[in-house]
Amino acid sequence: MLNILQTAFGGWQQSSVSVSLKDALGRVLSEDIIAQENVPAFRRSTVDGYALIAQNTIGCSESLPAFLSLIGETEMGKGTDLALNDYETVYVPTGGIVPEGANGVVMIEYTEPMGDEIAVNSPVSNLQNIVGIGDDVKENEIILSKNTVLKSQHIGALAALGVSEVKVLTKIKVGILSTGDELVAVDTPLKLGQIRDVNTHSLAAMIKSFGCEVVYQNRVGDLFDDIQKALKKAISLSDVVLISGGSSVGTHDMTPDIINSLGKPGVLVHGIAIKPGKPTIVAKVDHTAVFGLPGHPASCIVSYKTVVEPFIQKTLMNSKNKTKRVLAKSGFQAHVSAGRDVFYMVTLEESENGYIANPVHGKSGMISVLSKADGYIEIPMEKEGLQKEDQVFVTFI
Amino acid sequence: MLNILQTAFGGWQQSSVSVSLKDALGRVLSEDIIAQENVPAFRRSTVDGYALIAQNTIGCSESLPAFLSLIGETEMGKGTDLALNDYETVYVPTGGIVPEGANGVVMIEYTEPMGDEIAVNSPVSNLQNIVGIGDDVKENEIILSKNTVLKSQHIGALAALGVSEVKVLTKIKVGILSTGDELVAVDTPLKLGQIRDVNTHSLAAMIKSFGCEVVYQNRVGDLFDDIQKALKKAISLSDVVLISGGSSVGTHDMTPDIINSLGKPGVLVHGIAIKPGKPTIVAKVDHTAVFGLPGHPASCIVSYKTVVEPFIQKTLMNSKNKTKRVLAKSGFQAHVSAGRDVFYMVTLEESENGYIANPVHGKSGMISVLSKADGYIEIPMEKEGLQKEDQVFVTFI
Repeated sequence: MLNILQTAFGGWQQSSVSVSLKDALGRVLSEDIIAQENVPAFRRSTVDGYALIAQNTIGCSESLPAFLSLIGETEMGKGTDLALNDYETVYVPTGGIVPEGANGVVMIEYTEPMGDEIAVNSPVSNLQNIVGIGDDVKENEIILSKNTVLKSQHIGALAALGVSEVKVLTKIKVGILSTGDELVAVDTPLKLGQIRDVNTHSLAAMIKSFGCEVVYQNRVGDLFDDIQKALKKAISLSDVVLISGGSSVGTHDMTPDIINSLGKPGVLVHGIAIKPGKPTIVAKVDHTAVFGLPGHPASCIVSYKTVVEPFIQKTLMNSKNKTKRVLAKSGFQAHVSAGRDVFYMVTLEESENGYIANPVHGKSGMISVLSKADGYIEIPMEKEGLQKEDQVFVTFI
Repeated sequence: MLNILQTAFGGWQQSSVSVSLKDALGRVLSEDIIAQENVPAFRRSTVDGYALIAQNTIGCSESLPAFLSLIGETEMGKGTDLALNDYETVYVPTGGIVPEGANGVVMIEYTEPMGDEIAVNSPVSNLQNIVGIGDDVKENEIILSKNTVLKSQHIGALAALGVSEVKVLTKIKVGILSTGDELVAVDTPLKLGQIRDVNTHSLAAMIKSFGCEVVYQNRVGDLFDDIQKALKKAISLSDVVLISGGSSVGTHDMTPDIINSLGKPGVLVHGIAIKPGKPTIVAKVDHTAVFGLPGHPASCIVSYKTVVEPFIQKTLMNSKNKTKRVLAKSGFQAHVSAGRDVFYMVTLEESENGYIANPVHGKSGMISVLSKADGYIEIPMEKEGLQKEDQVFVTFI
């Protein structure tokens, strides 16, 4: 299914924008970050101690120390003109410059001051306790590659390299449309037969936490013209439109016709072999991807997570975001009919041997199921079911 | 160690604030959410079909259908006055009201219209395809409990219950202070001996993604008075202050004295048995928690993740956030000296049998290590090391 989308949206070019480092968390790099300098830029000591010439300490011990004359110290954050000759030493703090001529640093714990001299009790090997120029990052090295999703540690790495602004992909614009005569706003008292519009809210939350932007949000009844008008508007504003409800096989199933009325190529796939979430529609209207998602809240979440997010990630952003999923042992058995992938909402229980996935009972549309689940497992259509203790991957929701 | 903090900060009361549903993602509930209504509020059909009296279909089949007279239909989002008598039926769409008198719904696929009658080809059991009043959520049931971290599906559940505003904990206020004569701002060209202030940026990113607020951010040199002044200001503004650098055993180690000069009880722990990150300081000054973190970037991240985040989560927010960690098999062996917990930065590789954790090589302060790691593993001090294939938990960073 993703192949169809990959073909339809192949060559998608997301525009990019410069952001400052403090706003870069979670954004997707649109350029390789190439180090403009060596890190460290000078030879650093990794300990508090004395810089020295390693050969001068050969064979020394507590009973027979090597005596070196102290010719000065280097200070944090400052350069130094000091240079060592044989049997000379310089005090260096952790992170300080190792002066010219030195090729090792002895930890202060293995030394004793003796007037103008320092007694060294332990031999030092060549380059011991020194980080060389460029040992961490070399100038011109690619430190972060294009399409990396920036995490906290990347922000730190960029700071270290003096990068205070980065080019990132603009956020994917998403429109959300809920359809159904029975839907009312969250703060409206319910009349008989009405239910509240849940999907607009859970979809918006998932879209935001996935790093996309909600640019359109609306709820309309089951009239062809109303849906068409709203969908047209949503498509004109968005890279991706999610329309939920209206895609079951009831009398109200107008969504495919409406999508096809708005532009080419229109509906690409109608009905994906997954449960819950079967009525998922995948379409392209001009440059916008349109997904018809099931109306039931949990089905809607599963369809979004398994179809929409991978599409946005792989096809539109081409990002290297690892899915947050964990291996677990199934704590239950399930018999499913072959022919479609089945998704189960589960909770995760941590045991000494890793996670156990337990089922959250209830029908797919249930709010109680939604609010208890940590994630879901997928039973691929090739498998006839699930045995207790089977290994499963749980994707967090 | 967390016990000491638990005692020192026992009874911490974080204030709360009302936020609208669209701003509630990632926030921590400060109240139980009790359902004010039944969900569903009416008997709903889970299929497109015909509501009927189950007993009227006993023994029916394709060759011997049950004939029921169609007395009307229910519409989505509307109430109905219809009520069934024996051998009557009403058309009901998915999600529509099941009328009085009916105790089952037959899927439309198992029926055939015959003039004013509907031929039913398959027997229906009692309550089949019906969700009863309160089957999903019962009025007065606790649907989400206090201290839940709100995820997308919870936002959906709150929407379903008509909750458009929730009370959540105010964000924990965090101050960040970097110390060191060698530190300069990210956008400053480096002079010899200088390095850039990395920790302010990586800490700020981690704090924000953990749902806290950065209220103070500063960088000062290694002068007692400067650090004292900045720390005093940070403490006055923050619930938690993170001071990095200045906590190694060098000549510049003034942090504990400065903390103790600012209020009671002062330093609680100096030096935690973890590597990297040993110089971690834990203190309380008046009502503020102060953590002295190591200056090296990766050590700083590990100390923050293993000491600060659990404290904020368990002691200040008391939140039920499951740590994002996964079970993996070690792809390497490591010999470590007993006596302290050792943390290794690793990358995760997904295999058929789950994740494999591979080491990221390099010293703890290295930027290159930071930018490549997916997370870290902990080798507890009781263990002498790690064997290949050992099971390990990887915590995401």
